[in-house]
Amino acid sequence: MSFSFRIDAQTGSARLGRMHTPHGEIETPAFMPVGTAGSVKAVPQDTLEDLDAQIILGNTYHLYLRPGHELIRSVGGLHRFMSWERAILTDSGGFQVFSLSDLRKLTEEGVTFRSHLDGSSHLFTPERSMEIQIALGADIIMAFDECTEYPAEESRLRESLEMTLRWARRSHEYFEAHKHEVPWSGEQAGKTQALFGIVQGGMNARLRRESAERTVELDFPGYAIGGLSVGEPREKTLEMIAAALEVLPKDKPRYVMGVGYPEEIVRYAAMGVDMMDCVLPTRAARHGLLFTSEGRLNIKNLRFAQDQGPLDPQCGCKVCARYSRAYLRHLFVAGEPLAAVLNTVHNLAFYLDTMRRVRHAIALGDLSGIVSGNVSMA
Amino acid sequence: MSFSFRIDAQTGSARLGRMHTPHGEIETPAFMPVGTAGSVKAVPQDTLEDLDAQIILGNTYHLYLRPGHELIRSVGGLHRFMSWERAILTDSGGFQVFSLSDLRKLTEEGVTFRSHLDGSSHLFTPERSMEIQIALGADIIMAFDECTEYPAEESRLRESLEMTLRWARRSHEYFEAHKHEVPWSGEQAGKTQALFGIVQGGMNARLRRESAERTVELDFPGYAIGGLSVGEPREKTLEMIAAALEVLPKDKPRYVMGVGYPEEIVRYAAMGVDMMDCVLPTRAARHGLLFTSEGRLNIKNLRFAQDQGPLDPQCGCKVCARYSRAYLRHLFVAGEPLAAVLNTVHNLAFYLDTMRRVRHAIALGDLSGIVSGNVSMA
Repeated sequence: MSFSFRIDAQTGSARLGRMHTPHGEIETPAFMPVGTAGSVKAVPQDTLEDLDAQIILGNTYHLYLRPGHELIRSVGGLHRFMSWERAILTDSGGFQVFSLSDLRKLTEEGVTFRSHLDGSSHLFTPERSMEIQIALGADIIMAFDECTEYPAEESRLRESLEMTLRWARRSHEYFEAHKHEVPWSGEQAGKTQALFGIVQGGMNARLRRESAERTVELDFPGYAIGGLSVGEPREKTLEMIAAALEVLPKDKPRYVMGVGYPEEIVRYAAMGVDMMDCVLPTRAARHGLLFTSEGRLNIKNLRFAQDQGPLDPQCGCKVCARYSRAYLRHLFVAGEPLAAVLNTVHNLAFYLDTMRRVRHAIALGDLSGIVSGNVSMA
Repeated sequence: MSFSFRIDAQTGSARLGRMHTPHGEIETPAFMPVGTAGSVKAVPQDTLEDLDAQIILGNTYHLYLRPGHELIRSVGGLHRFMSWERAILTDSGGFQVFSLSDLRKLTEEGVTFRSHLDGSSHLFTPERSMEIQIALGADIIMAFDECTEYPAEESRLRESLEMTLRWARRSHEYFEAHKHEVPWSGEQAGKTQALFGIVQGGMNARLRRESAERTVELDFPGYAIGGLSVGEPREKTLEMIAAALEVLPKDKPRYVMGVGYPEEIVRYAAMGVDMMDCVLPTRAARHGLLFTSEGRLNIKNLRFAQDQGPLDPQCGCKVCARYSRAYLRHLFVAGEPLAAVLNTVHNLAFYLDTMRRVRHAIALGDLSGIVSGNVSMA
């Protein structure tokens, strides 16, 4: 079997699960570090393995533009290209087209956009997104969707939702017809990727439920909740996630895209979300914002100049085991490239440890210490 | 004993030796990676250990300006500050004052300069350089010298040489009076640093010999040959090194500062040089210039776009073991921070392996394969 998901324990709505993919198993709830352009920024692959990252995310938009999906296909797919033998998920490219590119034009066919790199013109359609994602060869790929802007009128949301559903059907059809073209060899030869559907519907709970129902009718092996963290208040995010989760099948993985702060991902896991991804730990690290068991800190703060303590006394990562806050502050202030490396390793360790603790709590049947203790909403 | 040097084997003029310092032993000939501001740029300390770097260099000028030697002293010295328990050497600050700072004014007393960071005014004297280097607490520290510009008239060289000798004497006197102020504790408590003298004399072999003779009269535990690689032709560099080596005592370590290309460091080791340092492997790596057993390559070259081979098929480093040229090219072209990390790890591995092969060849009594085979002058 190429893809499967099983739930081993449940506490309240939270689920302890295990996804099986052609490139290994993923314990859920899982946080997926973002490796935009084939690299989790500043972190070598062996360090990601040491951190026990079981799945990372790649961005279809970026990889399509550079180095190009044809090149990646020609070397056997993204796993081989970047020398990462564990699982990968790629997004559909839709979100980046909407957020990064210029002069986009949306039609029933797809989206025409200009590259943020060189201004060249490109067309993404559901079929094209599938073709690219099959060439990249991630274990889990995403249907091509429209991420509706926030705020938006109900009529606009309705229109966008219908478009996303039609695109989901086209994604599904193209994928079924071409899924054996994935450029895998060796142990993965003959296996296929898993295509997930995406729930949209803006900040309207009724439309979210309808989107979820009609996406489920297309029968995907997993479902994402997209279009969140686009500027809405956090209560709205929670409400939309709750609305979609009501409808999504309990025996399939549920993935909230592009979230969040540590306290948020814990909260969402408690609600029954199985997968999350976010650039926050990696991007914040490069800006000196570090997550610790004692809260967030900005490492460039003068009060750390002579602080001989570790970043986070509760953290077992190799950065906290070896380096002082004073040294990390110096590296950041001096613009040393090592700052990005060490800060990112710590932030990822913190996120991955957070999810490990969540899984442990679910197994023990008690999430109260985690959700009430460490979690306050941003 | 705080510092000692012993020669275990000799082949021609080349020496296989071992330096003992308060922070471990260093096999010589040794190449010392440069960690300008308390970090070998982009490389975590555990990776430096994996690479078997036994000594690294720190720049007094940079560390004095940021984070400041007082801060480093207050936490117990540079080893503790950067969590590096192996040996460190600091330069005197002189070379950077001449090459990086503005509006310097040279007097008998010392050098007044403006920080390249914020324009603030500072005075380095031999005494001040010693005070700073004692506070930093490297195992080997350098006398404060004037690095003469190239080209220079003989009268200018003579004047500069005399100044460097007077400064060497002042450095020596201050160091002897204050050496017990080094902020070491634990295993290193009570031990002292080793202060090396520096031979100058520009590109005049007679003055080089005189500088060496008169520096040796001051009786340092090791001697550097400074003021090279300042734009002179390579034959001049060789001639100046040869002139100084004629005079320098054979039972003391001899250190050529700021060199060089792989074929050059091999050549100098063959001439009897025991220590070298250079920013070349680390700086070139960040610009995509990589050293391999097949020669230099620029990783951004289009011909590597689909090259599935390792950077250097002869190299056993973890970059060559895991990543393809195609991937390394992509990282560099895409501006990924991982490019600097992986490129630097490889270049340092190449330099350190090169010196390992040189030491092995000296032990075997035959340097011909190394000096004639792989070495062509730049």
